[in-house]
Amino acid sequence: MIKVAEHWDKGIVDLATEAGLKALEDANSKNIDYLIISNMSSIFNNRQGNLAIAIADNMGLTGVPTYRVDAACGSGGSAIHLAYSIVKSTGKRVLVIGVEKLSDAITTVNTSSMMLAEDWSTGLVSGGTFVSLNALALRYYLDKYNADHDKIMMLPVIEHKNAMTNPFAQFHREITLDAVKKSPYVADPLHLLECSAYGDGAAAVVLENMQGDVEIIASEVATDAFRIANRDNPARFNAVFEAAKRAYMKSGISHRDIDVLEVHDAFSITGVIALEELGFADIGEGWKMISEDKIGLSGEIPTNTFGGLKARGHPVGATGVYQIAEITLQLRGDAGSNQVENARIGLTENIGGIATTAAVHVLRKREMM
Amino acid sequence: MIKVAEHWDKGIVDLATEAGLKALEDANSKNIDYLIISNMSSIFNNRQGNLAIAIADNMGLTGVPTYRVDAACGSGGSAIHLAYSIVKSTGKRVLVIGVEKLSDAITTVNTSSMMLAEDWSTGLVSGGTFVSLNALALRYYLDKYNADHDKIMMLPVIEHKNAMTNPFAQFHREITLDAVKKSPYVADPLHLLECSAYGDGAAAVVLENMQGDVEIIASEVATDAFRIANRDNPARFNAVFEAAKRAYMKSGISHRDIDVLEVHDAFSITGVIALEELGFADIGEGWKMISEDKIGLSGEIPTNTFGGLKARGHPVGATGVYQIAEITLQLRGDAGSNQVENARIGLTENIGGIATTAAVHVLRKREMM
Repeated sequence: MIKVAEHWDKGIVDLATEAGLKALEDANSKNIDYLIISNMSSIFNNRQGNLAIAIADNMGLTGVPTYRVDAACGSGGSAIHLAYSIVKSTGKRVLVIGVEKLSDAITTVNTSSMMLAEDWSTGLVSGGTFVSLNALALRYYLDKYNADHDKIMMLPVIEHKNAMTNPFAQFHREITLDAVKKSPYVADPLHLLECSAYGDGAAAVVLENMQGDVEIIASEVATDAFRIANRDNPARFNAVFEAAKRAYMKSGISHRDIDVLEVHDAFSITGVIALEELGFADIGEGWKMISEDKIGLSGEIPTNTFGGLKARGHPVGATGVYQIAEITLQLRGDAGSNQVENARIGLTENIGGIATTAAVHVLRKREMM
Repeated sequence: MIKVAEHWDKGIVDLATEAGLKALEDANSKNIDYLIISNMSSIFNNRQGNLAIAIADNMGLTGVPTYRVDAACGSGGSAIHLAYSIVKSTGKRVLVIGVEKLSDAITTVNTSSMMLAEDWSTGLVSGGTFVSLNALALRYYLDKYNADHDKIMMLPVIEHKNAMTNPFAQFHREITLDAVKKSPYVADPLHLLECSAYGDGAAAVVLENMQGDVEIIASEVATDAFRIANRDNPARFNAVFEAAKRAYMKSGISHRDIDVLEVHDAFSITGVIALEELGFADIGEGWKMISEDKIGLSGEIPTNTFGGLKARGHPVGATGVYQIAEITLQLRGDAGSNQVENARIGLTENIGGIATTAAVHVLRKREMM
């Protein structure tokens, strides 16, 4: 991983290369058969329409088959899933690099590029931006389940605390519940400090067959209706539920076996809903879990242990790869001050759009014989 | 396939849906486990940043894992290659839809989006557009091999003739060598009628394990240096050579076994170089093959039998999928007036950038027992 930040001094290819070379060094080999780049907006924000090749070339990986994979904010998890398929079918060694560089574009271009993960033709033209739709989901959730918004706003508080000791996090600053409550509304009832911020970043992993100290024991992707208006309950993420259900079935485990968790908290509410869809809380009860003793580093199910999208940062196409890298550190016992004790099984949940796409991965520490 | 044209009355999701539903009908089932969309520029030209989900939703395929795959003009072949990996590793049924809609954007935006397949940071800023770089490759080729440009200009003539009886072709108009020679230079020495035109289009195929009347017996992708200036010989496509070499090895055939061929003639010169890299001519001798008796419908190796990129059209991210669909028609004996007699084995060559990516597929008619 590289630090999530505004990298004004580097280009998108530089960021990806830096993360990619770190991953190759970690894997102790430069021998790669495949390169998959996960990224949402390079042709739009960086004027780079052939990104995968540009990165391969810059890394000295010329000749290696390479593509860019995109499923909006779910690009990272989707790319890992595709890489997993390739490794399984070919036995080959795949390098996945997630990268996003938003700071090349002025803020308005940037904001509009992220909005394009929603439906332009029906939603955006009527003001249904990403933020406003998530705010509506939050309002619906609060009303329907009589949930305590204060509890939900504890999610960014806990995450900012975890990020303090993560060298790669975007924000190294603790925040209080009071600060979240007093931060301005971006779209009522969603406060500024409940929303992940723009940031540049890159993360990379090497996948290969039956190697390494961590194994992926389930890799599942599911999708939902594009428009949130076409769903029965806008506060349910069916795609997450489906992907998780299949992942638990494939790996033969249940949510009770998970020791460490990464959920996609692009907004506080999406993190809360994820906890429910993954099975950690009943539907409508996820908000009750948002406290140190439940999801903190020493809690029942340590969640977003490096700060999550809110505090580690959310470099769109890279986010799902950061999650995999972070769980890998936890399972290796290399998480330093952020280490979850005896972490053996971890789960990542990465979504694109408002959970139009969900990628769920279950990782397990490979026990040495 | 749908007809390549300027589809002013339809959106990108409509085009993809139309092709996708035709493919499902052809496969006689709506049961799809995976959807892969190949497309280069939707976030740029169509303001659609979550294209795969938009299409899945519109087709009634909600729930199915889906992504967009991109390798510039080589997106189609790359998507087929990924689908092939997924089918092999999971046994699942994959629908691949290639789609591009260029007519939503004004011509200048459009032109610049296609240029973005080249390197913005070094090439484009100094005038190295897609067309100018291919023109330089053509000039280099003509000089180095003392090639006859008139022979090369026969490629669009033969292709336009083939397209006359292809209902899905962009151009239904025969052209003469004289017309090509008199057409204006786009970039000296490249004439307008040596260049593929902008067009909207969509094509789709269903891939599944051990089913159907046509099988893919090799699927290979290779890459080359991003910048043509960094290659020893700008008139060599190493990525095509590499992908073809591996494809021949995997399938146990040689170029002599190929009955029908689709090459990526984004420009006349790229079609000629492809013939060499695929083994049909020695390096520097491909131009001698451009005649009816060699590559015509009844020639030694019938090439671009439905018109190729020049006359069928080149809807960027869809092109590689059109090629697979066309070879499939040939091997099934369903090519109508364009049928190549006794076609049993076909090959497709699809490139992205100036052959920065090359995807080569070998398809074989499955003999019924």
